[in-house]
Amino acid sequence: MTERVVLAYSGGLDTSVAIPYLAEQTGAEVIAVAIDVGQGGEDLAAIRQRALDCGAAESEVIDAREEFAADYCVPAMRANALYMDRYPLVSALSRPLIVKHLVAAAKKYGGTIVSHGCTGKGNDQVRFEAGLGALAPDLKVIAPARDFAWTRDKAIAYAEEKGLPIDVTHKSPYSIDQNLWGRAVETGFLEDIWNAPIEDVYAYTANPAEPRDPDHVVITFDAGVPVAIDGETVTPYQAIVELNRRAGAQGVGRLDMVEDRLVGIKSREVYEAPGAIALITAHQELENVTVERDVARFKKGVDQRWGELVYDGLWFSPLRGALDAFIDDTQRHVSGEVRLALHGGRAVVTGRRSEASLYDFGLATYDTGDTFDQSLAKGFVQLWGLPSKLASARDARLGGSDK
Amino acid sequence: MTERVVLAYSGGLDTSVAIPYLAEQTGAEVIAVAIDVGQGGEDLAAIRQRALDCGAAESEVIDAREEFAADYCVPAMRANALYMDRYPLVSALSRPLIVKHLVAAAKKYGGTIVSHGCTGKGNDQVRFEAGLGALAPDLKVIAPARDFAWTRDKAIAYAEEKGLPIDVTHKSPYSIDQNLWGRAVETGFLEDIWNAPIEDVYAYTANPAEPRDPDHVVITFDAGVPVAIDGETVTPYQAIVELNRRAGAQGVGRLDMVEDRLVGIKSREVYEAPGAIALITAHQELENVTVERDVARFKKGVDQRWGELVYDGLWFSPLRGALDAFIDDTQRHVSGEVRLALHGGRAVVTGRRSEASLYDFGLATYDTGDTFDQSLAKGFVQLWGLPSKLASARDARLGGSDK
Amino acid sequence: MTERVVLAYSGGLDTSVAIPYLAEQTGAEVIAVAIDVGQGGEDLAAIRQRALDCGAAESEVIDAREEFAADYCVPAMRANALYMDRYPLVSALSRPLIVKHLVAAAKKYGGTIVSHGCTGKGNDQVRFEAGLGALAPDLKVIAPARDFAWTRDKAIAYAEEKGLPIDVTHKSPYSIDQNLWGRAVETGFLEDIWNAPIEDVYAYTANPAEPRDPDHVVITFDAGVPVAIDGETVTPYQAIVELNRRAGAQGVGRLDMVEDRLVGIKSREVYEAPGAIALITAHQELENVTVERDVARFKKGVDQRWGELVYDGLWFSPLRGALDAFIDDTQRHVSGEVRLALHGGRAVVTGRRSEASLYDFGLATYDTGDTFDQSLAKGFVQLWGLPSKLASARDARLGGSDK
Amino acid sequence: MTERVVLAYSGGLDTSVAIPYLAEQTGAEVIAVAIDVGQGGEDLAAIRQRALDCGAAESEVIDAREEFAADYCVPAMRANALYMDRYPLVSALSRPLIVKHLVAAAKKYGGTIVSHGCTGKGNDQVRFEAGLGALAPDLKVIAPARDFAWTRDKAIAYAEEKGLPIDVTHKSPYSIDQNLWGRAVETGFLEDIWNAPIEDVYAYTANPAEPRDPDHVVITFDAGVPVAIDGETVTPYQAIVELNRRAGAQGVGRLDMVEDRLVGIKSREVYEAPGAIALITAHQELENVTVERDVARFKKGVDQRWGELVYDGLWFSPLRGALDAFIDDTQRHVSGEVRLALHGGRAVVTGRRSEASLYDFGLATYDTGDTFDQSLAKGFVQLWGLPSKLASARDARLGGSDK
Repeated sequence: MTERVVLAYSGGLDTSVAIPYLAEQTGAEVIAVAIDVGQGGEDLAAIRQRALDCGAAESEVIDAREEFAADYCVPAMRANALYMDRYPLVSALSRPLIVKHLVAAAKKYGGTIVSHGCTGKGNDQVRFEAGLGALAPDLKVIAPARDFAWTRDKAIAYAEEKGLPIDVTHKSPYSIDQNLWGRAVETGFLEDIWNAPIEDVYAYTANPAEPRDPDHVVITFDAGVPVAIDGETVTPYQAIVELNRRAGAQGVGRLDMVEDRLVGIKSREVYEAPGAIALITAHQELENVTVERDVARFKKGVDQRWGELVYDGLWFSPLRGALDAFIDDTQRHVSGEVRLALHGGRAVVTGRRSEASLYDFGLATYDTGDTFDQSLAKGFVQLWGLPSKLASARDARLGGSDK
Repeated sequence: MTERVVLAYSGGLDTSVAIPYLAEQTGAEVIAVAIDVGQGGEDLAAIRQRALDCGAAESEVIDAREEFAADYCVPAMRANALYMDRYPLVSALSRPLIVKHLVAAAKKYGGTIVSHGCTGKGNDQVRFEAGLGALAPDLKVIAPARDFAWTRDKAIAYAEEKGLPIDVTHKSPYSIDQNLWGRAVETGFLEDIWNAPIEDVYAYTANPAEPRDPDHVVITFDAGVPVAIDGETVTPYQAIVELNRRAGAQGVGRLDMVEDRLVGIKSREVYEAPGAIALITAHQELENVTVERDVARFKKGVDQRWGELVYDGLWFSPLRGALDAFIDDTQRHVSGEVRLALHGGRAVVTGRRSEASLYDFGLATYDTGDTFDQSLAKGFVQLWGLPSKLASARDARLGGSDK
Repeated sequence: MTERVVLAYSGGLDTSVAIPYLAEQTGAEVIAVAIDVGQGGEDLAAIRQRALDCGAAESEVIDAREEFAADYCVPAMRANALYMDRYPLVSALSRPLIVKHLVAAAKKYGGTIVSHGCTGKGNDQVRFEAGLGALAPDLKVIAPARDFAWTRDKAIAYAEEKGLPIDVTHKSPYSIDQNLWGRAVETGFLEDIWNAPIEDVYAYTANPAEPRDPDHVVITFDAGVPVAIDGETVTPYQAIVELNRRAGAQGVGRLDMVEDRLVGIKSREVYEAPGAIALITAHQELENVTVERDVARFKKGVDQRWGELVYDGLWFSPLRGALDAFIDDTQRHVSGEVRLALHGGRAVVTGRRSEASLYDFGLATYDTGDTFDQSLAKGFVQLWGLPSKLASARDARLGGSDK
Repeated sequence: MTERVVLAYSGGLDTSVAIPYLAEQTGAEVIAVAIDVGQGGEDLAAIRQRALDCGAAESEVIDAREEFAADYCVPAMRANALYMDRYPLVSALSRPLIVKHLVAAAKKYGGTIVSHGCTGKGNDQVRFEAGLGALAPDLKVIAPARDFAWTRDKAIAYAEEKGLPIDVTHKSPYSIDQNLWGRAVETGFLEDIWNAPIEDVYAYTANPAEPRDPDHVVITFDAGVPVAIDGETVTPYQAIVELNRRAGAQGVGRLDMVEDRLVGIKSREVYEAPGAIALITAHQELENVTVERDVARFKKGVDQRWGELVYDGLWFSPLRGALDAFIDDTQRHVSGEVRLALHGGRAVVTGRRSEASLYDFGLATYDTGDTFDQSLAKGFVQLWGLPSKLASARDARLGGSDK
């Protein structure tokens, strides 16, 4: 029986060319699988047909948008996942979902090889292959760009030689990955890290500098999941779409940073993630109101590790599961409403309210109604500072104080 | 000999009234010490005279602005110190400096008691008294607001009764603490956490929503210290003043949050810190460029602990010294320039360059000049994912996989 | 109606004297509640009667041994809880259980006050009162030793004056707290930290220096819970009793340390915890075999925080719940057998086996059967070291290398 | 000019055979460099000569024992470095030192290639090559065992074919690496992790089960460095040698564990490290006495990271430097004496004293002389537990409490 290779298919030049090329190189039939994670752009039916036109034995498109929102974006938001305090893990989140569907397709179509379009210097190859190793260790993997040193020029020449139905004339200067949770842009002129991005780089966000009226939005969370926007019930997918639209229209969520890749190099990245940034901003403040202090302080380390782990391609690791168990426990009472002002590139919290609030007006107020017993403070202060006091006295005694 | 009490004097109602009151209560002479940490406002000579007019035996004003900038604000910036990811520790930074000068004054004037104006439900009492315990454990401490349940109304009545030279008619609705590093505002209507701040709350920042042209500024750092603005050499103090002015004019650095106090309650706080936010933003990005990945990841935990420790009043603890030793080591190469666009309430990095950069164009580029050996990736990816792969295989073998 | 005070009753001098004293001081009826957490010693019926003889209105003894083992000791073992890497939290674990039963008794008997025998310089007062604050914030608390500066001498005088049925002649030089999980001893001569403990200090453990044959024991765990000893099914309580006996007979589990108390001072403590040390030793090694590396590394921080939190009296904090959720997730596959040699004060793992093992003979062996593909290593090594290599090259370039 | 390869030479079969083999394969001259890190065994002059007899162009032996002790073992001890809470990093510590000397030899002899004997599935290849990448990125690396799939059988056949002056008849069943800091043993029958080690495995330690008298030793530390044994001044090297001898004679420091290798697999390892375990035990207890609580708690995470980093081959990483800066700061007052009882496989602290002690008898004692103000405790306890109390009240209010 002919071997079958399941190809993660985008509809673009590289993976279209890969269809006949993989068939040639391996003698296998190619099964093209395109997964909709909210990247928008082209019609999926057209993508499906193109794969067949390029010679795929089978072609399938899968709408995974709700699944992506609920099972990947929401957990990231609950972890306030911002790699290096900035990047909301746009591409890093979609890869494990794609892997899951590739593995399912390999089972369905009898595939023994999986192929993806990643290069050998990025993070995505790790995310694909660590995921495949975890879910289906017996599948072989081919990454033409890396394993056959495939380049864009070679791909164009090959497409023309084979007469593939692909438009090779349009050459975007940008290398882009986008999905529901955001959009990543790399390009030649940004590789000089002194250069600022130009407006042309952005697609999810309007120019924040242009004058417009602010947009006030109220997001309702239930146990750490966004469930309503301005009082109207939404699925996680709908919440993200709506906030991408409204926060994007106000220029919220542009990011420009130098980032540490897993493969050991630093790279310059520009991102847009209006919905992600709006949701994380609101979620963090609702945590401030509803999560106890020691939990909040420890959760920072958990959140950081969660983001690094997922960035580093280890979605399917046992550690992610254990961190999620911690996070789930902390989210039981992260319920309530947060009001955001979206304007001029900023998503600013202007109000929060919650049945589960730990903010106690009586304890906090300096006005009438104060219930805080200030006489407790003296003893607290003394014992709180006692270890430092003893250490300072010791230092002074030994003449070693340098404060 | 008459005992002497050293009073941390602000020139305001509460501490002015405290002068005769402390004398009355303790029979001691009062030494008023006012410390300029860049809080602006009134002339220091006038403040000095007022203390004498209220009955102080001695009155001293100390210009500690350069010291505050160099020894307190800069270390905070090197630690990217943002308590709960937001608050740059404005008040928490000035307290230990004030304590240090109070202790010096006690030695100079023969004081045996120190007095401060903090209440019993805030963080500042802890910062004062933990600091005093470390630096001068033999000094007694009196906090009239806490220890004598002193209130504003009592203070006004007392001032009028004694005919003190204080204007008690002006009643600001706001409780404010401000210094070079920022400004904190609390007030009655903000104690309802659903209420948004109004424009009237702010003094360091212009309204970010008003139209104006962006301001582009280049900050030069040397070993993690800001040394020039737009190419002009500055002291840390000058850098902060300049960035307060320019970032403040663009509405940068407004913060509104619910915060976990050390004394165990949550409180609503509004802050402005234009210079601090601009500097930390620039500094973080320069770290992204010049600090190695494993250092950067570990430093996040160090930075978090630094911020919590200082927030919690433990500036003089041995742990702060040890964390600073770590941070100092990481800052040796945090040198270079960062260009910020200040506009519409945002401080956005648009360029960075450094002799000490770890960004390697040859390794990063996808264009001509690529020096990254992609053939290394395959082995890396396989071993990187091996532990997760083994765990997944185990889970599958035991039927316990739930991914 | 007469108020009622629920007293945590031990049967000893201090709490016996407290019965009439509390009645006197408060005018309330005293309900004595003694909780068996495996402290052994006196018969519970006799303790119950003594409380009545001292004037208690009601007296109840509660056998909480199985509950203590399953719900307090086992979670501690799963967290490998050793405060300061040494102390298995003996007293810290029993306090929240006692609190829980005191609260239940207050509800049952209509108590509005709770009383305990702790002093004001130890950790236990915090554990009692933080627990009471969490479970029953409306209950008042009286701690005679702390609140009335009650001392042993005063207690003896009072007992004699009142003719209480307590033997006050026996004066142990030791202050002891003991339960199923271990035994804590403090005493005057050990307050000189240069003095070594003498044999007389110990009760749970034989002298490890005496000659005897080793004892080999096999402990079976299921999902991180000990379920069998030498193949015989046991409850957690039975497992601990059996290992206390067998490990104690070999002198295992003696500890002598200077420890950081929550109240800010250092104290000298001697402990014995033969069963706890044997169980934690076995459990840790079974984790080494069955827990994936990244989980194991992160769990160390979780375990440390768990131990500190419980030591610090915060058993009922939300953070403990969230840490336990993490730990529970990691224990799903901590199943299998560990063989320990108990001898000469040491509990040494000599074998381990598990269906859920992640140890893979084929990958580990250097003999025939090796399945590890060594060709993968080269790429791994290169990319693993790349960030350090780039940083070293930078340092060399700038002349700043000091390695 | 002929290329030169610098070989890390041990004198054993594998690296002896590598001399002619490398020459053959590369056409280069071989420079054999043997480094004495206290591994004992054969005379270094004999080793030097053997390399020449096998065809080395140059042969050098370097006594690095004092350097190893002072610059590698002592920092490890100050970090209480025990990988996975057990393993004192024996091999992991010597590799960077060897790398440093290989790089120096390459410079001295004009070498352009470095060669080592590590396989492709162990940690040591990473330690060698990450170190070489950091110190001398231009050197090429050859690891015959890994890169040419060189095995012991091949080596013996090759030695016989070439008539090399090596005794190939003696076949130890053990694979051993040993140095001043300890000894690591792997062997076929221990690859079954249920098997216990046999006495024959050990060389640094006597059987702990044999009867003998205890040995009491007093170790003096100055700023975290061992400077005297029983009052006699020693260098770090002498301290380790002496404690290896005395603790080894009592059977101290045997370890048997399943360990997570950097390359992603678990392996079974048996170690002996009598001096290391004795020193770390004493050092930890002196830290308990002299290091302030918050520092001690944070240092645990630093120590853990230090151990993992060095285990993982990243000695020359910038993070190690920054962690050491932290540790150095904490060790300033780790001065004093610790008395250990060495006996029956155990190193037990029986006394500690220090001018820099933070143990305060007056605060700790329950006897006459107590200076602790117990009245401070009430306020401390209340505010300490306040966040948990508020969270519990919230949970109860919402009906969600599950405690």
